[in-house]
Amino acid sequence: MKVVFHEDSRRHHPVSFLVNGVMRDCLEVPERCDVLLGAARAAGHEIVAPDEHGRGPLAAIHTAEYLQFLEHIHTRWRRIEGASEEVLPNVHPDSRRAGYPKSAAGQAGFHMADLACPIGAETWRAAYGSAQAAIAGARLLLAGERSAYALCRPPGHHAFRDLAGGFCYLNNTAIAAQVLRDASRRVAVLDVDLHHGNGTQGIFYQRGDVLTVSIHADPARFYPFFWGHAGERGEGPGLGQNLNLPLERGSGDAVFLEALEAALVRIRAHAPDALVVALGLDASQTDPFGGLAVTTDGFARIAEAIAGLGLPSLLVQEGGYLSDELGANLAAFLGAFEAAAP
Amino acid sequence: MKVVFHEDSRRHHPVSFLVNGVMRDCLEVPERCDVLLGAARAAGHEIVAPDEHGRGPLAAIHTAEYLQFLEHIHTRWRRIEGASEEVLPNVHPDSRRAGYPKSAAGQAGFHMADLACPIGAETWRAAYGSAQAAIAGARLLLAGERSAYALCRPPGHHAFRDLAGGFCYLNNTAIAAQVLRDASRRVAVLDVDLHHGNGTQGIFYQRGDVLTVSIHADPARFYPFFWGHAGERGEGPGLGQNLNLPLERGSGDAVFLEALEAALVRIRAHAPDALVVALGLDASQTDPFGGLAVTTDGFARIAEAIAGLGLPSLLVQEGGYLSDELGANLAAFLGAFEAAAP
Repeated sequence: MKVVFHEDSRRHHPVSFLVNGVMRDCLEVPERCDVLLGAARAAGHEIVAPDEHGRGPLAAIHTAEYLQFLEHIHTRWRRIEGASEEVLPNVHPDSRRAGYPKSAAGQAGFHMADLACPIGAETWRAAYGSAQAAIAGARLLLAGERSAYALCRPPGHHAFRDLAGGFCYLNNTAIAAQVLRDASRRVAVLDVDLHHGNGTQGIFYQRGDVLTVSIHADPARFYPFFWGHAGERGEGPGLGQNLNLPLERGSGDAVFLEALEAALVRIRAHAPDALVVALGLDASQTDPFGGLAVTTDGFARIAEAIAGLGLPSLLVQEGGYLSDELGANLAAFLGAFEAAAP
Repeated sequence: MKVVFHEDSRRHHPVSFLVNGVMRDCLEVPERCDVLLGAARAAGHEIVAPDEHGRGPLAAIHTAEYLQFLEHIHTRWRRIEGASEEVLPNVHPDSRRAGYPKSAAGQAGFHMADLACPIGAETWRAAYGSAQAAIAGARLLLAGERSAYALCRPPGHHAFRDLAGGFCYLNNTAIAAQVLRDASRRVAVLDVDLHHGNGTQGIFYQRGDVLTVSIHADPARFYPFFWGHAGERGEGPGLGQNLNLPLERGSGDAVFLEALEAALVRIRAHAPDALVVALGLDASQTDPFGGLAVTTDGFARIAEAIAGLGLPSLLVQEGGYLSDELGANLAAFLGAFEAAAP
């Protein structure tokens, strides 16, 4: 299938990553592009560069203040005497209704949920390119492709409307889903990343028109902690349009595939005519996060089951970090998906 | 006047303080106790230790989960392999309605708003002692004293019902105000700390029975950023019962005293029969935060004006950091207050 990749994705080099009170090396490195791209190319998939579709599709999902912030905050931050190279938040509001500050430090706290989404000099450019790949992928479906893979980096599913977090800045998956909605497609989002797709859930939480389903390690003891519990079902017009399937830490193929069956039942009930898969590969047994234990064969079977829906499908890269199996897992997923698609 | 001080206040030794992406030394040091105590003693005020009033008055303000968290999180945190010595949050919910996590890291993010409230081995004990001083101070008023000073450390006014922040863990001012409420006093809180009393505001925001007034550096470009704007007036039964008077950065005595006049007009209109003053001394011209420029004489005039209300008044120590004038500012405030009280 076609693989959409924007070269600017490599420009983002995050360093800071605070975990349990200690600064560690960030796992979301540019080398992920090489591994994923290499695996896709070796498996015979065609790599294409996205056309430029501008800022409009980003503004359909994210607030104007937030886009301004992402684009300009690094320059403003570096003007503060003694400030760090990367923008890092240190104080956070208790709700999105709290007052919007004017200062760089205040805005960093307002727009960054955690210490795993540092903003460097070229973060905006990389995130923008990553989103363009997702948009182009969605447009491939609209042009008649049965499936496409957007190799997005940085990933997106932890980004809310106005809030970065967990290596994510622009919600590529949500942006792609909205491009399909704007072309009157009925859309479901299925998130198979190790971590709950909290940003995507948040963006569509009060909307009835986009179904969001996520399978992930139980947030009771796993990032993102505050979201991803089974009881979160949507609100208002969106009530019942969000389904979370948290899995016990360490679960392998069988448990994942069983949850996937429930996810597919819910998706079929929504009767979508397009699917966006938030394709994290960090549920892998070899992923450094170590949350779940899906095998390479497991990823093939997950892909097969999803392809069985028979829907035009956009696969959007989310998490999945350097490990011996990262490339093989992507190749297994893409291959099985294409083979099983009707 | 009587000065209530709990020796456990010295047990809290915070180290971490992230500002503009860089770890700095924490300014809220135990030596503050020595300076404040020394100045009060030298000025002839009587130092008394608080009686033990238990956990009840804390539970009247803070949630059960939060008190559990403060008491036990350090022990749980230290069981995490490779964790830092102090508890530090790294990921935060977008609202207080988000799911409550089970893990130490998740709870740290839920209950700590910023990287200026690290929790060490004895933080709970110090915060508990600090709160006992505030409770004892309130009881002095109930026993007939016209005024009393609770030398609380750590401070409290940035602590919400279930959220630490800005060097604060238990909201001593709010706890004292509630002790007075529970004895059927009609209470007003006046916060003259350099920083907005966001925790106190938050605790009483939807209550009509406690008036909260705060004079502080404009949060548009100053901590706590998200709260303290003039438009925040209270909600529901509390609408109109919160007054914020933000001052331009660098303002001195004249501007502060003018705002204080407005504060006193509002307090008189509430017709309270007891006053709690959140007595930060960091509006000082020599305070390391450098936000406002109040002189030692200015503090005396502020005290005089507040004493002019003629109300039984509890002065609760909030911020105010090591500087050449810290002790003199406290002595000036206490002396002028006592001299001017009818």
